[in-house]
Amino acid sequence: MTVQTKPASARPDTVTTGPIAGSRKIYTSPEGRPDILVPFREIALDPTAREEPFRTYDTSGPYTDPAVTIDLEAGLPPVRREWIARRGFATIEPRAVRPEDNGHVSVERMVPPCPAERRILGGKPGQLVTQIEFARAGIVTEEMIYVAHRENLGRAKMLAGAEERRADGEDFGAAIPAFVTPEFVRQEIASGRAIIPANINHPELEPVIIGRNFLVKINANIGNSAVTSGAAEEVEKLVWSIRWGGDTVMDLSTGRNIHNIRGWILRNSPVPIGTVPIYQALEKVDGEPDKLDWEVFKDTLIEQAEQGVDYFTIHAGVRLPYVPLTAKRVTGIVSRGGSIMARWCLAHHKESFLYERFDEICDIMRKYDVSFSLGDGLRPGSNADANDAAQFAELETLGELTKIAWDKGCQVMIEGPGHVPMHKIKVNMDKQLRECGEAPFYTLGPLTTDIAPGYDHITSAIGAAMIGWFGTAMLCYVTPKEHLGLPNRDDVKVGVITYRIAAHAADLAKGHPSARLRDDAVSRARFEFRWQDQFNLSLDPDTARQFHDETLPKDAHKVAHFCSMCGPKFCSMKITQDLRVEAERMAGMEQKSEEFREKGKSLYLPEAAAE
Amino acid sequence: MTVQTKPASARPDTVTTGPIAGSRKIYTSPEGRPDILVPFREIALDPTAREEPFRTYDTSGPYTDPAVTIDLEAGLPPVRREWIARRGFATIEPRAVRPEDNGHVSVERMVPPCPAERRILGGKPGQLVTQIEFARAGIVTEEMIYVAHRENLGRAKMLAGAEERRADGEDFGAAIPAFVTPEFVRQEIASGRAIIPANINHPELEPVIIGRNFLVKINANIGNSAVTSGAAEEVEKLVWSIRWGGDTVMDLSTGRNIHNIRGWILRNSPVPIGTVPIYQALEKVDGEPDKLDWEVFKDTLIEQAEQGVDYFTIHAGVRLPYVPLTAKRVTGIVSRGGSIMARWCLAHHKESFLYERFDEICDIMRKYDVSFSLGDGLRPGSNADANDAAQFAELETLGELTKIAWDKGCQVMIEGPGHVPMHKIKVNMDKQLRECGEAPFYTLGPLTTDIAPGYDHITSAIGAAMIGWFGTAMLCYVTPKEHLGLPNRDDVKVGVITYRIAAHAADLAKGHPSARLRDDAVSRARFEFRWQDQFNLSLDPDTARQFHDETLPKDAHKVAHFCSMCGPKFCSMKITQDLRVEAERMAGMEQKSEEFREKGKSLYLPEAAAE
Repeated sequence: MTVQTKPASARPDTVTTGPIAGSRKIYTSPEGRPDILVPFREIALDPTAREEPFRTYDTSGPYTDPAVTIDLEAGLPPVRREWIARRGFATIEPRAVRPEDNGHVSVERMVPPCPAERRILGGKPGQLVTQIEFARAGIVTEEMIYVAHRENLGRAKMLAGAEERRADGEDFGAAIPAFVTPEFVRQEIASGRAIIPANINHPELEPVIIGRNFLVKINANIGNSAVTSGAAEEVEKLVWSIRWGGDTVMDLSTGRNIHNIRGWILRNSPVPIGTVPIYQALEKVDGEPDKLDWEVFKDTLIEQAEQGVDYFTIHAGVRLPYVPLTAKRVTGIVSRGGSIMARWCLAHHKESFLYERFDEICDIMRKYDVSFSLGDGLRPGSNADANDAAQFAELETLGELTKIAWDKGCQVMIEGPGHVPMHKIKVNMDKQLRECGEAPFYTLGPLTTDIAPGYDHITSAIGAAMIGWFGTAMLCYVTPKEHLGLPNRDDVKVGVITYRIAAHAADLAKGHPSARLRDDAVSRARFEFRWQDQFNLSLDPDTARQFHDETLPKDAHKVAHFCSMCGPKFCSMKITQDLRVEAERMAGMEQKSEEFREKGKSLYLPEAAAE
Repeated sequence: MTVQTKPASARPDTVTTGPIAGSRKIYTSPEGRPDILVPFREIALDPTAREEPFRTYDTSGPYTDPAVTIDLEAGLPPVRREWIARRGFATIEPRAVRPEDNGHVSVERMVPPCPAERRILGGKPGQLVTQIEFARAGIVTEEMIYVAHRENLGRAKMLAGAEERRADGEDFGAAIPAFVTPEFVRQEIASGRAIIPANINHPELEPVIIGRNFLVKINANIGNSAVTSGAAEEVEKLVWSIRWGGDTVMDLSTGRNIHNIRGWILRNSPVPIGTVPIYQALEKVDGEPDKLDWEVFKDTLIEQAEQGVDYFTIHAGVRLPYVPLTAKRVTGIVSRGGSIMARWCLAHHKESFLYERFDEICDIMRKYDVSFSLGDGLRPGSNADANDAAQFAELETLGELTKIAWDKGCQVMIEGPGHVPMHKIKVNMDKQLRECGEAPFYTLGPLTTDIAPGYDHITSAIGAAMIGWFGTAMLCYVTPKEHLGLPNRDDVKVGVITYRIAAHAADLAKGHPSARLRDDAVSRARFEFRWQDQFNLSLDPDTARQFHDETLPKDAHKVAHFCSMCGPKFCSMKITQDLRVEAERMAGMEQKSEEFREKGKSLYLPEAAAE
């Protein structure tokens, strides 16, 4: 997917920086580890609220920190460098860049490589490399400490009421802790239930954990423009996505300059970057699936792993015998990777080389700690095709491959659908947990109906919220342009915010101990007519403020004890506030009436008698 | 709620007419009743599709029929007039209009009354008046025949595959028929499980049925502008809402001219109109809740019933003893009607006159067949307050009142929340069904999180789709401006389309026999690159087309066998289409391979062995 090219005059020569309205960046450290600095966003509240500033999870990286000078050429501060350095990985000679890596771009059109200097590292056989290998060896890594602190929103101990909120939720057999310890993180990773996508060649990463016992995460997709004006334009897509809440970003670029642009993105990305290597491999064979082979694919894996990509989508579950199962579908195969591999299998009448070479793929990915995102190449592209034989056959194979990857020391998550009506969503989750040994599920939506092109962020938010509640660890966003065209800047923002809503609704329903705090903070602000607080606490303060201004633009209205919907006379919140004093007196009376009732003397007619 | 006033220059002097892109209005008649004409929208498909035109449910009324000349002063053709006339109701002397009915508007600002002439009718005691009275007497009314035909999308017999699609769904104990007969409609109405809101003074109505064994319906709210330029501007809000799919419209106007504007709306509305009479009653006592009394409320009921309002929201469940239960809430009472009545109860320290005079309210509403929408004045205004003692105490009282209204011969539906996290939604539905004897549930959302003002159409679409699936009969829309300001024209459209998505997702999940037909038609069009068909079959053809044009504006691209997302080389649908011939050959091979396996000679490695 490619973000639309803006008119030349509007092309940024730099990226969006500065704090999100009403908030400031802070960093706190886990106990005893002042060297680990975890970012959060703190939202100041009106003094009348008599509440502490509200702290939220922050995906936006150094870009929202005015104290950091952004220099795309130097790349972000490599926060993981020291941690990685202590692990003793070998510096390796990087694979030489070839003309086909950048789609044979001409000199005049070439985006130059990012000059940020990084040594390329590789793990040795027998050495602990991946987070799952460390976890199994009983070692708590800095990444694990980091994500534990991050998931706790920087708190040093369990929140008051955490147990109650957890008990109030329904987590369908997950085991969300009231407080996340590094040891808990280690256990979850060791068991395969969670991953920290963190290539050892991506030191700029602010680690994030993906697993159903943690906050639900979201992914945003970006891609290069047909005509690229420069590196900043491409990095801006990343920066814009994470500003609004993307936890990870997939770079789905194709065509010219993709190697060099990927370098710029990685050196300037604080979030895990995922790719689909088969796309670039296909470019290298002139776009002809039949010409693909193991050598070109392997070469691409190494190329991208050395650059620091954190997770790869690998469509190894698209097996030759499953292809005929799609023949009678309404929408066939809708995954690009899936259709490429299906075509290859049929053209050669051979089993997929991704499936046959899976051991070797594991060895390469383990060497750099690139996590697997096992692709669902046979996901349904319509409600009609949901949960069919092809989809579930592939899912079973993904389960088989998960176990192989785990044995090889790799981290794994599993991609899921797609287009699924509501009543068929839970089956997907339950089967995924069972087949794939509780490896994290990472779904695209699902879209709950096919009839609303132009609104598929909404058709899919319904499914995403539900499957997130049921246990999906990460939700891949869908923008309003899905099925129709390339998302522009506004579409990307709407997609990200929509998916933050879905993820948060899921966290709330699961009973995540910290989720409801933000809802309650917004609701208190709303009830007390603290308009600025309501805007600033919301997922998108700019839009909330703008919508309010459309009807009541004056500053005075920001402190008004009513809003434009009902006006002062009809404001239920105002009436209720006036009622409170009265009601509290009544509560005393109700107490008295209770006493009356207990004595058999009803003050008010009991309901049973009133019928 | 009030739709924003446009700049004077942009004020319409008439309303939006003309077909929705790519479709035409048709009418068909139930068997043996050529006098009953039921409207549908027929979407023509590309000849290459070799499919019949696609027929959809149509809420838009005569406004999308080029053959009808719209004359707001004359009102719409009174399609029910003959049916009603045969029932022998008395013509009654209408209540005289008083200055306070129009908020004491000055002569120069007055919107004149709608000149359309209608006799005012009233049912007599002992006479069959309401749809539920006819139904219980075993009489199938024209309205019942009409809605049966409408729900069947004009088909004369059961659709092929209807039983299979029904069996494929999960309806949670509903009993959706494979084919809707007038007799089935009668039984559903007689049992109270469904209503046809249809005031005998609203002959312009195209009847619609609301019940969980029918298609899920949606309501849109409109209201007068602070400065009204004229009747057409106000009617346009109705026309715009139903154009995009509003099944019913609530007129929540307050202030000046509301009596006269309501007249214009009713005479020009093909959909049921609902109101909240307490709003106008409050206006008549200068906005001071304490001054309300039974007489002014009763007068308002009669005033609006005579005009033809089809359903009234009555907050009779807000009882004095429940008010203190809201004292410790995060957001108190958020329903306008609820807070008005709570204030009245406390000020007078008396039980609500709506509760105490409920019998008399029933008698008035029965006389005109105004349906009850029993208001949830104590609905939660935040996730924190969901499913609390106040909310459920009121719901139990609504159950008690439902039985009284039924005994009095009235049709009833029940309003529901509000703000509810996902895991607490189903409890609401189950309790409502139990307490209210399966009377139709009519919910506002619910919003599944409080943290996204500006996006509450989305936070609530998640909850609306779910509760619709669980059994809610009608979903009240929420626009992006909820909590922030007055929805403008675009907001209203987005709200309506979003709720059509939620309702349709619910129908699909319930296994409604005709729901999936449209998804499949869109999906086939998508897979076959019939772009125009994909646009025209969608809920909002204009937006779908516009989004596509943003990236691929040329006409040639409307027939292109790829889209801008992946381009021709990466188009999975294209690759799949190419694969089909091949795959079908493979299917033959797979057959052979099956035969091999059965003989114990596996062609491909069986999965178990591959692990």
